[in-house]
Amino acid sequence: MGKRRLETCFSPALFFPGENHDSIVVVIDILRASSAICTAFANGATEIIPVADVSEAKEYKSKGYLVAAERDGFVLDFADFGNSPFNFTKEKVEGRTIVYSTTNGTGIINLASSAYMTVIGSFLNLGALSKWLLKQDRDVMLFCAGWKNRFNLEDTICAGAIGEKLMHSGLYSTICDSTLAAMDLWSLAKKDLSGYIEKVAQRTRLKDKGLDDCIEFCLTPDFTEKIPSLKNGVLVDNICIFL
Amino acid sequence: MGKRRLETCFSPALFFPGENHDSIVVVIDILRASSAICTAFANGATEIIPVADVSEAKEYKSKGYLVAAERDGFVLDFADFGNSPFNFTKEKVEGRTIVYSTTNGTGIINLASSAYMTVIGSFLNLGALSKWLLKQDRDVMLFCAGWKNRFNLEDTICAGAIGEKLMHSGLYSTICDSTLAAMDLWSLAKKDLSGYIEKVAQRTRLKDKGLDDCIEFCLTPDFTEKIPSLKNGVLVDNICIFL
Repeated sequence: MGKRRLETCFSPALFFPGENHDSIVVVIDILRASSAICTAFANGATEIIPVADVSEAKEYKSKGYLVAAERDGFVLDFADFGNSPFNFTKEKVEGRTIVYSTTNGTGIINLASSAYMTVIGSFLNLGALSKWLLKQDRDVMLFCAGWKNRFNLEDTICAGAIGEKLMHSGLYSTICDSTLAAMDLWSLAKKDLSGYIEKVAQRTRLKDKGLDDCIEFCLTPDFTEKIPSLKNGVLVDNICIFL
Repeated sequence: MGKRRLETCFSPALFFPGENHDSIVVVIDILRASSAICTAFANGATEIIPVADVSEAKEYKSKGYLVAAERDGFVLDFADFGNSPFNFTKEKVEGRTIVYSTTNGTGIINLASSAYMTVIGSFLNLGALSKWLLKQDRDVMLFCAGWKNRFNLEDTICAGAIGEKLMHSGLYSTICDSTLAAMDLWSLAKKDLSGYIEKVAQRTRLKDKGLDDCIEFCLTPDFTEKIPSLKNGVLVDNICIFL
């Protein structure tokens, strides 16, 4: 039997949904959407409804849903809170359905939804996600959200960290230059992850807005075993996915 | 006075022509278009007319032009030769105008043509190009051709090599994650460039077609001082550009 294929995509502008019908797509947007989503499930959220549109998020709010919504890092005025993982506390989210709309992350989840399966990846669930992927007999696409369609380093090194775990298993092969680059960049970054992340553009963007307090947390490996997964357009804990 | 801005773009799908009106755009497609173009000028070609269309290349051929044209590595039947730098010998190209159409490279030159100035970069003219860029008081965009809109490693490490030379001058600043990634990958690749290039996807593609004989040559730094530059849609030696 041939090895499974591992690929990486650096930007939504480089993602071709039609090519991933049979793959598991891992959506990576570590500063901050995919880290926030992992945190929400770690703290007991039952469902997250990703919506790309502000108006749709507003409509959900009027129906009584808990709404997390931001644009360019700023909380939208009608929303309950924004995009920092620190917002998704146990007190706020346990047992709740959250409607979630961000600049980048939620649009990308929708774009990835044509895959065989769409899951959320971050450093926070790195170990559990990698172990789970190894158990599936599927090709994997690591889909970096980037920033406004551009390449970014933080998602790339997270893809590299996942890629390293998968490639070390011997179960995957790759002829994808993006995967090789991500793994090489991770090999440099992992020696001093906080130091490496100092230079990335998004860190500067968040710092300028006073939103960089969560970066250290977003780099924490294995904070949770949860693997948020898309089921009928809604994110659920993936232990529910085959129910 | 502020520093000049240095940016890198990994794919035509990520390139926004409108953003580069005031910049010098360096087109990098080292396996094999930008290396072939540098070689042609090194061997005395006077002009290269890049055409994206096969039919346009054919029309030029019927008018008596020397035509280099390939698709996916294969020479088109009506053309004089294809895309290997080894075709552009002194005997064939000295004093001649060449019409040139490739899978990737020529379309990208046209895409980049809205820049303040568009020049061709490769390892072959690395030193001369970098020195010349340092003398210009302009922002620089390193534009990697990639492969069919995807990221590739060989163009990225060449961008990293140019980026390293520019950043070391202290004249440029960058907040572009692509530039930082390219320089980091170059820092890994330069220790053993031939060894590093072994793993890139394009090497496998060229090898499968028996077209990999020129790779070692394409990695040669400073083979030429020529800097092919676009003037009214035609590539000329850049010493002619301000005439």
